[in-house]
Amino acid sequence: MTERLNVPLGDGRDYPVILGEGCLEDPAHFDPFIGSQAMVVTNAAVSGLCLERLRQGLVNVTQLDVFEIGDGERFKTVATWSAVLDRLVERRHNRTTTLIALGGGVVGDVAGFAAASYQRGVGLIQVPTTLLAQVDSSVGGKTAVNHATGKNLIGAFYQPRAVVADMGVLRTLPEREFRAGLAEVIKYGVIADSGFFAWLERRIDDLVARQPDALIHAVRRSCEIKAQVVAGDEREQASRAILNFGHTYGHALEALTNYQTFLHGEAVAIGMVMAMHLSERTQRAPAGETERVRTLLAQAGLPIAPTELEPDAMLQAMGMDKKVVDGRIRLVLCHGIGEVSVTAEVPPSEIRTGLLTGL
Amino acid sequence: MTERLNVPLGDGRDYPVILGEGCLEDPAHFDPFIGSQAMVVTNAAVSGLCLERLRQGLVNVTQLDVFEIGDGERFKTVATWSAVLDRLVERRHNRTTTLIALGGGVVGDVAGFAAASYQRGVGLIQVPTTLLAQVDSSVGGKTAVNHATGKNLIGAFYQPRAVVADMGVLRTLPEREFRAGLAEVIKYGVIADSGFFAWLERRIDDLVARQPDALIHAVRRSCEIKAQVVAGDEREQASRAILNFGHTYGHALEALTNYQTFLHGEAVAIGMVMAMHLSERTQRAPAGETERVRTLLAQAGLPIAPTELEPDAMLQAMGMDKKVVDGRIRLVLCHGIGEVSVTAEVPPSEIRTGLLTGL
Repeated sequence: MTERLNVPLGDGRDYPVILGEGCLEDPAHFDPFIGSQAMVVTNAAVSGLCLERLRQGLVNVTQLDVFEIGDGERFKTVATWSAVLDRLVERRHNRTTTLIALGGGVVGDVAGFAAASYQRGVGLIQVPTTLLAQVDSSVGGKTAVNHATGKNLIGAFYQPRAVVADMGVLRTLPEREFRAGLAEVIKYGVIADSGFFAWLERRIDDLVARQPDALIHAVRRSCEIKAQVVAGDEREQASRAILNFGHTYGHALEALTNYQTFLHGEAVAIGMVMAMHLSERTQRAPAGETERVRTLLAQAGLPIAPTELEPDAMLQAMGMDKKVVDGRIRLVLCHGIGEVSVTAEVPPSEIRTGLLTGL
Repeated sequence: MTERLNVPLGDGRDYPVILGEGCLEDPAHFDPFIGSQAMVVTNAAVSGLCLERLRQGLVNVTQLDVFEIGDGERFKTVATWSAVLDRLVERRHNRTTTLIALGGGVVGDVAGFAAASYQRGVGLIQVPTTLLAQVDSSVGGKTAVNHATGKNLIGAFYQPRAVVADMGVLRTLPEREFRAGLAEVIKYGVIADSGFFAWLERRIDDLVARQPDALIHAVRRSCEIKAQVVAGDEREQASRAILNFGHTYGHALEALTNYQTFLHGEAVAIGMVMAMHLSERTQRAPAGETERVRTLLAQAGLPIAPTELEPDAMLQAMGMDKKVVDGRIRLVLCHGIGEVSVTAEVPPSEIRTGLLTGL
C-alpha cells in the first residue's frame, strides 16, 4: 500500500511524499517528475542494496547516469559536491535534468545542493534509504555541505519535486543507523504532539523491532509534522526553527568530535536531553519531562550523555551554529512534551551551568 | 538626484534599484537592508576607487569586513567562492549578515552565489561599478561561477535586497569596459523597445562620450526593461530567456577562447550579430535589421565578428550552453528590432551554415 502526503508550499511548488513498501520500483512515482535525463547520486553500500530496484522505477529515463560518492559525513564536503557537478558536466546534463538522491542524509544533502546549484537549479527527487532521511532530511528542502569549522554552513533551501520513501529498504539498515533515526522521530513528539510521544512510549519496543505497522505510523506521523512546520516557514525565518530542537547542542557535539564519534541522530539525542534539562532548570518545562525523554531515548538504544565534555569548547562551538542571531545563542526549549519555543534569552553563563549539571 | 525603480517579484521580495550620482555614500540607501554585520566583496582596483565612499554609506554597520578577490573572469571560480565563504566563517558572520558586492559582474556573481549559499542564504546588496553590471548582472538575481568547461554552470537564482547603482563611478571605468557595457544596453533595444533602439542610434556618440543625461537615460531604461522581464519569469522557465539574446553564441565564444580574448559584452556583441544574421537568413527578421545592429555596435566601438572561428567547435560549445533543452539548441531570434522569441527549431546544420556565411 502506498500513501501520499502533500507538502503544501503553494506557488505551484507543492510536492508529494510517497510512502510505502515497494514504491521504489514503480515508474508511476517517478515519471511525472523526470524528463529524458537523470543522474542517481548514491554510495556503494546503498547502491548494492537498492539500485537495481530503483532502475525499474526509472525505466523510462532515456539517459540515466549513476554517480557514487563516499559513505559518511566526512564526504559531505565542497569537494564531493564539486565532483557531482563535474560528472553532470562531463555527461552533458542540461537544465532539464533531474538528480535523484538515493541514500541517507549525506547523499540527500550533497545531491540536493548539487541540484540547487547546477545550472542554477535542476530537478531533484529524494529517495531516502535511512530512517533519519525518511523522517527528516528528505522533506523540507534543506540541503548543505559541511565547512571544516561547522556543519551545514554551505548550502541552499531547495525543494525536491517529490520524495519517494520505501519502507522496505529500512529492513537492511544497520541497527545503529536505524536507532539514530528514531531520535528524530522522538523529536517530533517532543516538539509538536504529546499524543504521538505517548504512542512512542507504548510502542518503542515494536519500533525498535521494526514492526511494519509501527514503522509506517511513525514515519507517516513524522513526515506530517515536518511538512506542516516547513509549509509554515519554508526558509526558517521563525517557526521552522522548532525543528532544530536538540540540534544546536547536537551540531556542536558533532563538530567537537570532528564528525567521527556520533551519528547525527545520536548527537541530537544527547542534545535533546541537554535542551530538556535546561528547559527544566529555567522553569520552562515541568519537572520530570526530561526524565521521560531520557528514558524513551534510552529505550530506543540511543546515547543520552557524551562520554566527555568541555563546556567552554561546547559553548564556543554552539556560537558558530546557524541558530545564532546577532551574537545571542538561540535555543529551542521545551514547555512540556508537545510544545517548544525558540528563545535567545538564556545567557551563555546559564547555558554553561546547564552543561555542567545536566549530565 | 536619485531615482528608484522597483523590481516587482511579489511575495514580499520586491526590491529597489537605486540609481543616481553619489548614492554610494548615503546610509539611507543601505540602512534598511543591513543588520549589525556585513562584508564587502570587491577587488583591489575597485576598492581603491570606491571603498572609502562606500564606507560612508555603511557607517552604521557595527562589524564591517572587506574581502578582495582577484580581478577578472578567470577568478569567477568555485575556489574564489569558497574563499569568500572561508572568510565569512573566519570572521564569524551569522545568518543575519549581509554581503555587499562592490564591483562588476564577476564580483556580483561570486558574492551573489556566496550570499545564496552561506548558511543557506544571507542578505545581499549589489553595488555595481561597471556599466555592464549596472544594466545587467546586478538586477535579476542570477548568480554563478564558471566551470572549466562552461560559463555560469554553477550558481543560483538569488535576489538581492537592493541594488545601488552610482553613475558617478562610471567616469573612471576603462574605455574598453565601458563600451562592453553598451552591448547589453543595445541588446535591450533589440529585444524589447524599438523606440529605445532608435534613441540609441541618435545618441550613441553622446553615450560613448559618457554624457551624463544620455547615460542616465540609458541605464534607467535598461534596468526598467530588465526588471519587467525578470518579474515575469524569475527563474527563466520561459519568457526571461529573451534576455539571452546573443548569449548562446557569446558564451560559446568566451568558452572557446578560455575567457581570455573577449570581455563578456564584446562576446555578446558578436553573438548578437550572429543571432541577427540567422534571424534574417531564416526569414524571421526583415532584411537590413542585421545591418542596423551591426552599425550601432560598431559605432559603440564593439567587435562585430571574431577574428577566427571553427564552426564545429562553436556548435559543440553552444551545445553545452544552459539554453539547450533535451538536445536541441535554443536560440533567441529576432523578428525585427524590438521583438524577439525563443526557438529550438533551427536545426544545427542551419546554425552551422549561418556561422559560415554571416561573418
